Amino acid sequence: MGLVPRVVVDVMPKPEILDPQGKAVLGALPRLGFSGVTEVRQGKRFELQVEGEVTEAVLADVHRMAEMLLSNPVIENFEVRVEETA
Amino acid sequence: MGLVPRVVVDVMPKPEILDPQGKAVLGALPRLGFSGVTEVRQGKRFELQVEGEVTEAVLADVHRMAEMLLSNPVIENFEVRVEETA
Repeated sequence: MGLVPRVVVDVMPKPEILDPQGKAVLGALPRLGFSGVTEVRQGKRFELQVEGEVTEAVLADVHRMAEMLLSNPVIENFEVRVEETA
Repeated sequence: MGLVPRVVVDVMPKPEILDPQGKAVLGALPRLGFSGVTEVRQGKRFELQVEGEVTEAVLADVHRMAEMLLSNPVIENFEVRVEETA
């Protein structure tokens, strides 16, 4: 079978944007007995399977998908990368 | 300043679990003019800053946080890893 490449898009709130979900997690940690975590940011992770090889053209397409559909560029940053999976 | 280590927790729906958010994204792609994507899974990404060094004990703690708070182990898998950031 070989390796199946997977394209991953990570979408995170921009550093200057408030992240209420991350703050809620951070606030819950001490109540659960955890200490030592100083910041939590929560974002989204997308895993895409594509037909055929992951070429530069495919990655350019995924970039446009991330801009148009997967993220809100006003408040979020995204990163596209390829992961080889078994 | 040096590198600030960041602990990342990726939380994804288990393969056997329906993922309506991923399906919605997959369904929207052709309408936006994109082809060639055969599957989309949507999950969550958490970025944690911790005090001091990221030791094995810290990572074990983050594992327990992921089990108790960041994921729902019945329907989601998670992965913990360290990323060095500038």
